[in-house]
Amino acid sequence: MEPTTFVLFGATGDLAKRKIYPALFNLFVDNKLPESFSLIGLGRRELSDEAFQANVEQSIHTFSRRKTNNPDLLKNFLRTFRYSVLDIDRKEDYQKLLKLIEQREEELRIVPNRMFYLSVGPEYFEKIAANIKESGLGTADGWKRLVIEKPFGHDLQSARDLNEQLSKAFAENEIYRIDHYLGKPMVQKLEVIQQSNPVLHAIWANNYIANVQITANETVGVEERAGYYDHVGAVRDMFQNHMLQLLMMLTMHLPNVSNSELVRFKKKKVMENLEPLLKQDVGANVIRGQYKEGSIGGKQVVGYTSEPGIASTSMNDTFIAAKLQIDDFFWRGVPIYIRTGKRMHEKSTRIVIEFKEPNTNLTQHHDESQVPNLLVFEISPNESITLQLNSKDPSKNGKYKPIQIDFHESQEDVPEAYENLIYDALQGDPTFFAHWDEVELAWAWVQPILDAFQENLVPLHHYAAGTNGPAESDALLAANGHHWWFDSKIEQVNQSSEEKYFAHHTN
Amino acid sequence: MEPTTFVLFGATGDLAKRKIYPALFNLFVDNKLPESFSLIGLGRRELSDEAFQANVEQSIHTFSRRKTNNPDLLKNFLRTFRYSVLDIDRKEDYQKLLKLIEQREEELRIVPNRMFYLSVGPEYFEKIAANIKESGLGTADGWKRLVIEKPFGHDLQSARDLNEQLSKAFAENEIYRIDHYLGKPMVQKLEVIQQSNPVLHAIWANNYIANVQITANETVGVEERAGYYDHVGAVRDMFQNHMLQLLMMLTMHLPNVSNSELVRFKKKKVMENLEPLLKQDVGANVIRGQYKEGSIGGKQVVGYTSEPGIASTSMNDTFIAAKLQIDDFFWRGVPIYIRTGKRMHEKSTRIVIEFKEPNTNLTQHHDESQVPNLLVFEISPNESITLQLNSKDPSKNGKYKPIQIDFHESQEDVPEAYENLIYDALQGDPTFFAHWDEVELAWAWVQPILDAFQENLVPLHHYAAGTNGPAESDALLAANGHHWWFDSKIEQVNQSSEEKYFAHHTN
Repeated sequence: MEPTTFVLFGATGDLAKRKIYPALFNLFVDNKLPESFSLIGLGRRELSDEAFQANVEQSIHTFSRRKTNNPDLLKNFLRTFRYSVLDIDRKEDYQKLLKLIEQREEELRIVPNRMFYLSVGPEYFEKIAANIKESGLGTADGWKRLVIEKPFGHDLQSARDLNEQLSKAFAENEIYRIDHYLGKPMVQKLEVIQQSNPVLHAIWANNYIANVQITANETVGVEERAGYYDHVGAVRDMFQNHMLQLLMMLTMHLPNVSNSELVRFKKKKVMENLEPLLKQDVGANVIRGQYKEGSIGGKQVVGYTSEPGIASTSMNDTFIAAKLQIDDFFWRGVPIYIRTGKRMHEKSTRIVIEFKEPNTNLTQHHDESQVPNLLVFEISPNESITLQLNSKDPSKNGKYKPIQIDFHESQEDVPEAYENLIYDALQGDPTFFAHWDEVELAWAWVQPILDAFQENLVPLHHYAAGTNGPAESDALLAANGHHWWFDSKIEQVNQSSEEKYFAHHTN
Repeated sequence: MEPTTFVLFGATGDLAKRKIYPALFNLFVDNKLPESFSLIGLGRRELSDEAFQANVEQSIHTFSRRKTNNPDLLKNFLRTFRYSVLDIDRKEDYQKLLKLIEQREEELRIVPNRMFYLSVGPEYFEKIAANIKESGLGTADGWKRLVIEKPFGHDLQSARDLNEQLSKAFAENEIYRIDHYLGKPMVQKLEVIQQSNPVLHAIWANNYIANVQITANETVGVEERAGYYDHVGAVRDMFQNHMLQLLMMLTMHLPNVSNSELVRFKKKKVMENLEPLLKQDVGANVIRGQYKEGSIGGKQVVGYTSEPGIASTSMNDTFIAAKLQIDDFFWRGVPIYIRTGKRMHEKSTRIVIEFKEPNTNLTQHHDESQVPNLLVFEISPNESITLQLNSKDPSKNGKYKPIQIDFHESQEDVPEAYENLIYDALQGDPTFFAHWDEVELAWAWVQPILDAFQENLVPLHHYAAGTNGPAESDALLAANGHHWWFDSKIEQVNQSSEEKYFAHHTN
């Protein structure tokens, strides 16, 4: 790997502590950091190198998936960490940073390859990029790369504005937009699963597939993010980025031998072929939901508008379900259902491909005990691949019996999303990052939804916390004869005290 | 279920004790015997009803998969068991039997539905059938059925002769030829797996399948069957019946809704489309093997010709591997490899479907870490279905990693082959029995092999006990670029004593 200087904006922030330092440490342990490596942490407050290193060490002890009881290993890792104070607006600080980088490049004999990682609020992206350019930080013989976190814009126009500003300092192929769902191991396998398995490739098309269901359910509410979340909602926070990226990763058609340009090209193709949604059609294809009070795991929780920091009149969406259609040779006629929500019954991110049922003889009755074939990718909390088949229990008089053949990924020692992504960025592999084309097309696709919500053209359906979302989400699928797979049964929230008494005393 | 009299020839024999009585008892426990049921056991030696019932009870205690600690249950079951002595040649004994049957039919108010189960040597089949007819045992208002065990003939001509004799007393639809492989639960599922799962149906053809491998390996030698086995060999004992039945069950193409006539029709079609083997082509397509001394599970065992009761010059086959070709729309061009042997490394009956590899870009190198997709049915000793896919380990630099998604049938409370088959025969369901057409076509197909072996046109390859058969069996597949899947590694039989010393002392 090429010698690299890793310039981290927001080095004292939460994301750095929880994700970036542990990821870097794990890469170091796996010998996946460049041999010549310099990290420069930047933050608002004064901090000595020693204090910075101590902070990083603490974060690794707390958050790394690896044992950290080898002090020499940690010492070797932290040796290359330096800190510099930086006020994002002060040009002098960038000059000071440049001197420090150059000094370290000389000490460590690093050619000036510089990766700028912006672990800061989106309001600072443009300013930092401009200052990197103006200060000369980005003008050197080596390469430069910009790694940024979501959100990338607030709507189509602001995303375009942001991109225009960033592109004054960095070319598109120098920008690595992190969508951490693309770093999840099971998501990274989606492209492989379809392209390298002839048996799946053969059935990966509309003549075999009845529908596709992509679900990302959380049990948490807004947590400490009320102020941010109430201006964002589920469409911007989850749907425009993570959910549409999952859609692209699943539905693009790659040849057996592919590369990052081809992945980019095919993902863009998916978005271009996605049937556009007109503002007046949002109501028929999109369900807007917001949680009210309810019970999760036996614990009572408040409704969204009673959360601290949320206005009691808020119409913000904490749930969205949508029906999409890719109009290409493979997917035409296959409804794609996507939903994501907070305060749902169960935490689960999964993709279900439901296959068409066998052609039954029209003169004979359909056997009710037969189930559709399903291919299920569970992405989190655990990773698994399951294929549901029909079998038969010979002792049950010829009745069908569904069986599930499955594969559970060992949950030990699985690299976290950030490890995969930082490693790829260090290597210059853009495969699993969100490219501007995709980001722009995704904003363009959701813009009518944002507008329809804003203008209240679509009803806001409330759902009790701890359920599977509003009933209208089920009705969206039922209209096509489909239903969400694997929605767990809901506990009886309204169980009377008498029933509770008996349930308690007869167990 | 219809009232039935179950007339068991060979009631004191080994098969009856080990298989038939436990199967009947388990059916009884499951409420799967007719409510009006009479069993009459027949044997050469004198036995009182009480002694007979005590013998049956003992066999159930010893061999039933179910707990038998309920004396009332056993008593109820045995209540309907009667015994009658019978010399197969004595016409008077059949008359006595007829009287006993009629008396019991009257007592139990059973319409004269009679199932004759011949659990005796094949040399008695014709005589018994003729006497059943002559005595009037088979002439009554109800139905009659004949259940017979293998072997059905010794070659094509003797099978035809036997069938001609039997058909004088029983119509084809009254004859239930037991092939106990057809009673195994996983084998009974094969027809369902393909017909009711669109995702498998779609890839069940020669444009996706590279080859099919059907293996039935045993670790045992000839055991106490030397005198019989040395005149029979692997072709007659396993290949002509069990292996070709597995082939038919796997490769027949059924529509989603089927019935026993269709199964019979489609199985016959498979045999008709099986490319005939000419005697002069046996050498190129069939490997004949015989085990010599070796080691299984660390235990030394003798070679076949040193087994008690086997002539030291015997050329009998204890192993056969063959390459077959079904010439129809679905299977043309797909080699089907079948093998079965005694004293093999591991006991395993399984079917492996190997799928073609993805079309690789001709200008790029094939990725060696990619494996073919496999669909594996393990039939015994355990039941499982496994699909091998290619996946990727994101932390392994894009190398492919095979994963196996699988389903293991619970081994608890699985009905035995004989339970399924006796139940079907009682119901009059011929689906999982060997029909004459199949038996005749199977003998016709193997006859050139028998002739070529007899005339020594094919070499006899020796293999060490505890291995995967002769090297020529591997070469048969290697000629097409294939290999047997899942052959376990062989222990070092020829380890020198010095190596053994070190292996022992360094562990």
